[in-house]
Amino acid sequence: MKKIIIINGANLNLLGKREPEIYGSQTFEDYLEILKQSFPNIQIFYYQSNIEGELINKIQEIGFSFDGIILNAGAYTHTSLAIADALSAIKTPAVEVHISNVYKRESFRHHSYLSRVCVGVIAGFGMESYRLALQYLSEN
Amino acid sequence: MKKIIIINGANLNLLGKREPEIYGSQTFEDYLEILKQSFPNIQIFYYQSNIEGELINKIQEIGFSFDGIILNAGAYTHTSLAIADALSAIKTPAVEVHISNVYKRESFRHHSYLSRVCVGVIAGFGMESYRLALQYLSEN
Amino acid sequence: MKKIIIINGANLNLLGKREPEIYGSQTFEDYLEILKQSFPNIQIFYYQSNIEGELINKIQEIGFSFDGIILNAGAYTHTSLAIADALSAIKTPAVEVHISNVYKRESFRHHSYLSRVCVGVIAGFGMESYRLALQYLSEN
Amino acid sequence: MKKIIIINGANLNLLGKREPEIYGSQTFEDYLEILKQSFPNIQIFYYQSNIEGELINKIQEIGFSFDGIILNAGAYTHTSLAIADALSAIKTPAVEVHISNVYKRESFRHHSYLSRVCVGVIAGFGMESYRLALQYLSEN
Amino acid sequence: MKKIIIINGANLNLLGKREPEIYGSQTFEDYLEILKQSFPNIQIFYYQSNIEGELINKIQEIGFSFDGIILNAGAYTHTSLAIADALSAIKTPAVEVHISNVYKRESFRHHSYLSRVCVGVIAGFGMESYRLALQYLSEN
Amino acid sequence: MKKIIIINGANLNLLGKREPEIYGSQTFEDYLEILKQSFPNIQIFYYQSNIEGELINKIQEIGFSFDGIILNAGAYTHTSLAIADALSAIKTPAVEVHISNVYKRESFRHHSYLSRVCVGVIAGFGMESYRLALQYLSEN
Amino acid sequence: MKKIIIINGANLNLLGKREPEIYGSQTFEDYLEILKQSFPNIQIFYYQSNIEGELINKIQEIGFSFDGIILNAGAYTHTSLAIADALSAIKTPAVEVHISNVYKRESFRHHSYLSRVCVGVIAGFGMESYRLALQYLSEN
Amino acid sequence: MKKIIIINGANLNLLGKREPEIYGSQTFEDYLEILKQSFPNIQIFYYQSNIEGELINKIQEIGFSFDGIILNAGAYTHTSLAIADALSAIKTPAVEVHISNVYKRESFRHHSYLSRVCVGVIAGFGMESYRLALQYLSEN
Amino acid sequence: MKKIIIINGANLNLLGKREPEIYGSQTFEDYLEILKQSFPNIQIFYYQSNIEGELINKIQEIGFSFDGIILNAGAYTHTSLAIADALSAIKTPAVEVHISNVYKRESFRHHSYLSRVCVGVIAGFGMESYRLALQYLSEN
Amino acid sequence: MKKIIIINGANLNLLGKREPEIYGSQTFEDYLEILKQSFPNIQIFYYQSNIEGELINKIQEIGFSFDGIILNAGAYTHTSLAIADALSAIKTPAVEVHISNVYKRESFRHHSYLSRVCVGVIAGFGMESYRLALQYLSEN
Amino acid sequence: MKKIIIINGANLNLLGKREPEIYGSQTFEDYLEILKQSFPNIQIFYYQSNIEGELINKIQEIGFSFDGIILNAGAYTHTSLAIADALSAIKTPAVEVHISNVYKRESFRHHSYLSRVCVGVIAGFGMESYRLALQYLSEN
Amino acid sequence: MKKIIIINGANLNLLGKREPEIYGSQTFEDYLEILKQSFPNIQIFYYQSNIEGELINKIQEIGFSFDGIILNAGAYTHTSLAIADALSAIKTPAVEVHISNVYKRESFRHHSYLSRVCVGVIAGFGMESYRLALQYLSEN
Repeated sequence: MKKIIIINGANLNLLGKREPEIYGSQTFEDYLEILKQSFPNIQIFYYQSNIEGELINKIQEIGFSFDGIILNAGAYTHTSLAIADALSAIKTPAVEVHISNVYKRESFRHHSYLSRVCVGVIAGFGMESYRLALQYLSEN
Repeated sequence: MKKIIIINGANLNLLGKREPEIYGSQTFEDYLEILKQSFPNIQIFYYQSNIEGELINKIQEIGFSFDGIILNAGAYTHTSLAIADALSAIKTPAVEVHISNVYKRESFRHHSYLSRVCVGVIAGFGMESYRLALQYLSEN
Repeated sequence: MKKIIIINGANLNLLGKREPEIYGSQTFEDYLEILKQSFPNIQIFYYQSNIEGELINKIQEIGFSFDGIILNAGAYTHTSLAIADALSAIKTPAVEVHISNVYKRESFRHHSYLSRVCVGVIAGFGMESYRLALQYLSEN
Repeated sequence: MKKIIIINGANLNLLGKREPEIYGSQTFEDYLEILKQSFPNIQIFYYQSNIEGELINKIQEIGFSFDGIILNAGAYTHTSLAIADALSAIKTPAVEVHISNVYKRESFRHHSYLSRVCVGVIAGFGMESYRLALQYLSEN
Repeated sequence: MKKIIIINGANLNLLGKREPEIYGSQTFEDYLEILKQSFPNIQIFYYQSNIEGELINKIQEIGFSFDGIILNAGAYTHTSLAIADALSAIKTPAVEVHISNVYKRESFRHHSYLSRVCVGVIAGFGMESYRLALQYLSEN
Repeated sequence: MKKIIIINGANLNLLGKREPEIYGSQTFEDYLEILKQSFPNIQIFYYQSNIEGELINKIQEIGFSFDGIILNAGAYTHTSLAIADALSAIKTPAVEVHISNVYKRESFRHHSYLSRVCVGVIAGFGMESYRLALQYLSEN
Repeated sequence: MKKIIIINGANLNLLGKREPEIYGSQTFEDYLEILKQSFPNIQIFYYQSNIEGELINKIQEIGFSFDGIILNAGAYTHTSLAIADALSAIKTPAVEVHISNVYKRESFRHHSYLSRVCVGVIAGFGMESYRLALQYLSEN
Repeated sequence: MKKIIIINGANLNLLGKREPEIYGSQTFEDYLEILKQSFPNIQIFYYQSNIEGELINKIQEIGFSFDGIILNAGAYTHTSLAIADALSAIKTPAVEVHISNVYKRESFRHHSYLSRVCVGVIAGFGMESYRLALQYLSEN
Repeated sequence: MKKIIIINGANLNLLGKREPEIYGSQTFEDYLEILKQSFPNIQIFYYQSNIEGELINKIQEIGFSFDGIILNAGAYTHTSLAIADALSAIKTPAVEVHISNVYKRESFRHHSYLSRVCVGVIAGFGMESYRLALQYLSEN
Repeated sequence: MKKIIIINGANLNLLGKREPEIYGSQTFEDYLEILKQSFPNIQIFYYQSNIEGELINKIQEIGFSFDGIILNAGAYTHTSLAIADALSAIKTPAVEVHISNVYKRESFRHHSYLSRVCVGVIAGFGMESYRLALQYLSEN
Repeated sequence: MKKIIIINGANLNLLGKREPEIYGSQTFEDYLEILKQSFPNIQIFYYQSNIEGELINKIQEIGFSFDGIILNAGAYTHTSLAIADALSAIKTPAVEVHISNVYKRESFRHHSYLSRVCVGVIAGFGMESYRLALQYLSEN
Repeated sequence: MKKIIIINGANLNLLGKREPEIYGSQTFEDYLEILKQSFPNIQIFYYQSNIEGELINKIQEIGFSFDGIILNAGAYTHTSLAIADALSAIKTPAVEVHISNVYKRESFRHHSYLSRVCVGVIAGFGMESYRLALQYLSEN
């Protein structure tokens, strides 16, 4: 059975908890349950931290034994060369995901330090970005 | 039944025909057959042109009646503001896809005129980028 | 009798056909009829294409015999050095027009390859931009 | 009867007074007379100053009661954010005009602070740029 | 008794006079009265001009005898090196204030020539920006 | 009674502890006591961390219940998009403060990721920058 | 016998037809005859189009069977990433030629998308640029 | 007898009046007397203003009858395209002077709008910069 | 006896543990033992963290009592202004070291925030970079 | 008989002497002999120096009497404005050549100071670049 | 008696020898004689070289004993940091001169490495630039 | 016995001869003697020139037989692509050294053409930079 981890970075712990009129009242934990049911043959792990270095620690920890990383680093996507270096040091392939279409937003969100060291990028499909990444990693 | 079109731009007609040691001998047409079988409930159309303006013509033609566009504009992704304008003039939602991870390549491939006017972007998953896009459009 | 051609580029064939709540239901063809009536002493021709090279072909074709070109190249305004070269190779003077005030829009619409090789620029007056250009060319 | 003011900025008081072999001996005042005859149903006012702040004073003074401003700010076009702010604070619509085609000249003349806050731009038609602007404002 | 002058630059004479639905009907002169009552032990002077050089004249005039300048230069903040030079030539300390948060606005409002030669900057607190500056200058 | 928190970022724990000949021997804790006495009707909380993600945690923790944040993020002001995202996700208004006039210092300190998502900015008034921020938040 | 094609891009069909006082009355077709006589052992083909995508079509068509391409893409040299991609997808080596010395002209003509994917560049020798390219391809 | 005018711009009226311990107590008026004695055969005029537009007015006023202008525009050197346009509109040759070596100062003082339209530049020789300019204009 | 600390930043805990075919199987801890034997008269301490703020905490903690810091901040070298500020706040001199020659790598690794506040930089000598730094600090 | 000189700049004396597995064991002197035999009606001279100023001396020395210069300035191509000035001061036409296709290499090799003042550029054809240049100069 | 040296850099040995219809037939040596007669109380030395390093050698050689340097480094002005370093290492003050007004020429001639380390700059007065520099150095 | 050469570039012959109050009265030759005594098993050679091309000559001369180069090119570090090319053409490994910490100085000293082609860089340790480089080369 494949082991895949979803790693969420800065401020993504607030999903579903703030601005419910916009994002709905579904928390990421709720959504995670649905994902798990959709992929019964995958062991799905989850980790979130607002601290850049803890994200690195986690990436290093699972980076030689897991089968895939789904990484939404939040704002660290655009500022953290250190997370990128962690990704290039490990063996587990990573998929970069974004809930929003970052290319429609401020220009400083158009550049990602991480894309270069990930398998690929999925951005703009709301929560479904995670599902598409999982779909890919489950079959490749 | 949903109608979704895959539009391929410049040089993508060469897929599977050149450099078979790298890309394999599978043409896009072959791959398309497999896709169609995977999504029996979707009407999948296909169009390819090397001419920027013909891509615009096609986008305009289907852009008020189809349910989705999967667009890999090839190099026009990075130079064609005109295709972007076509996408923003129509009603059909588009997903931008790339076979390779463009962010690992030359810096002039990091900017896309199209991302801003698409629902989202899927890049780097080989031919599977198309399947993920189809997956999304089939369910949303 | 002067011969003047209006050349419209990418996506301008959609005028009046899309988003009628914004642009009204008047197509460019309708507007053209009104223009013709306002300038009974001018032979007004019209050409539209979404293909950059066809615009060049047309410019070359009429560029040594007509008395004026009114050119709204749409998005090609900002990306086509080739159209600019065509304009500088011919003898017929051209006026660059834009329906919207491009300087209020995205920064990539602030630069025009064409302005440098046209007599002048008229931008921002809606359909009336064409009339003002015609006014100028009819009298100069 | 509509009230429209033509406001000329820095160095435009020299028109027709210097280099007559190039510009002819027609001063702006002479040209203004002709304009007034062409538009007998418009009250045309005129103001010129070389002082940026006086242009702002004039714009504020007439900006809530006049029907239109035709503004050729000369070199202040390219350096005066303050005039732009004055234009965005008032209610009277303004048309930016230039005698020469500024896009054929030095690159520092390609950017205008004013275009963004005007209805539109007319540049490159010699003195006729003013007439075209008047034409537009008289009918809209 | 301390002598402090508030100097307002381009277009700030329109405060409270235009767009009352947005800015209210309170003019700067009204607000000034309230400020004077709040700081009965301070002599508060006021000067406004739309002319860059007159602002310099005023800064020079009071710059060796007053105890403080509260300067909102409006758009000149972003274009006037000459006002900055005036500030660095005098002895009276100046505080730069802005009513709006300029960093939320267009990028050309993010740079100030004046900040470098002022004690400090207060921006974004509406009219209260003036009061905070006065607070500081009254006690330091 | 209003609840306001002062959050200090990187290296600000060293205030008053290093270079006493320059900064004096007053620690931030000492200064805090004075502030508390000046604002007896405000509950003033204090938090400091050198870890970017802990600052985010704290902002999230108090961001839906407190009445104001006074944030001096130190060097993170200039590099942390993640803190900016945290501020834009919460409801409590924040005021950005700086002890020194950052615009007099190295150019990489002139840009702030945070200003855009704060009510306003107060910079350059030494420790008094905090007092002015408190003044504003206590009354608005 | 080697098969070599000369491909001319945008506006090069006008050679010898416009501005004869500058370029002479020799058309490219005339010149081609002379070239063919100079290289009797080479099969020289010729293609011209103003349409970017048709140039790509031609490059793809002959790119696996011909022995050399001499490509003067005109203005597309500086704007067409799509033609560059076509060149890198084929097997036939290409030589980039320019009639004028592009480095003496406007700065936007100094960058070529094509040079990177051609064997080499020959620019500035008038029509003789083609002969030199042919010379090289005939012997290598 | 030649007529030459020295025109001083923003803040140069403060010379010799402020910071006498640095600049000495010699005002520009004092220095002017010495200059006049050194050049008894030249009629030397003097004008100073802090208002950009008044400098333009003066340049226009004397620009067709005087034999030379010595222009130290102060900070307007670096921001005023309008003064540059005035200089290029007149017939009298101008020499740009600076008291300090502007190239040793902040980078925004390294660019001058005026140099391009002056005969030449003399910078860095203190008050003697004016004498050298006068020397040149008196003999050429 | 001198007290010197080696501080390693992001991802440097993986040294010798990953990619042994490239880096060998020597961990930094192993190498440290060798270093200690080479410098028997120096007390060598060691600290590693992937968390930017913990590096700052450590720098502050030892920065007033130790005799030297050898700092390899990894990717934080290029993004952390906060670590640079910590270094400039303390008294202990620091030497910046890099195992690889960062100037041979991606351009975003050519700029260091830290160099400006360190005694000097040693880069490119593999593990020996640490020894050279120690050599310097042991004798100066 | 025409007199043409080949001038080679920095490090080109190493051709054929270093890295024979790459460049072969043919020195430039060997190649020169072959060139001379191919062009028996041309007097071919040769000069090489690693010293920028000596290249200038040679260009000046022969620049009024020779019929052509073939210049491969090596790295000075990209940094020497002084050689460019020498070329523009003389009468002999120069052809810029490069052995490698400089546009495939590092970006700092894409700009040439020399191209602007040469007849044309030939780059990327190995040693044959010299022959093509000679071909051109021998016949024009 | 003061000892002053004029140092001319790259290509300035050609003055008066080339393009006599433009520059006249006066060589720098001729002009030097006239200068010497004008300043009988100054020992005027002269040195010219096209080699950057020889200019440095000369500057070092006389830089501790002469009273002034008049330096026209030609193109090295814009590219030689090494000459600038030589000037800042010596004690003799230097004046930078240019015959032409470099600010009217190509933009790469607008920046000088030398201005920062010279007393001042004199540019644009033809040969008289040297005389003005001598005038200054003779009296200061 | 290893043969290592120290090559010093522009202006480094002045070390110890100028500004003794800053640099001490120790010349590089004196320091060299001490170095030689510290490394009795290394043959240490020394070369200095102010001429860029002579440095290249020396690098070429010893670059295939020596065991190491310690190169302090002075200002040429930042401007000489030609020296970089020489280093990449030879076999002897080079270490780039700087006496001062160039990253604390003007921004044009932050970029080195040489670092990319050296083993590594040592900067900021005064004369000891040379010793550390020697240390490395003697043992590797």
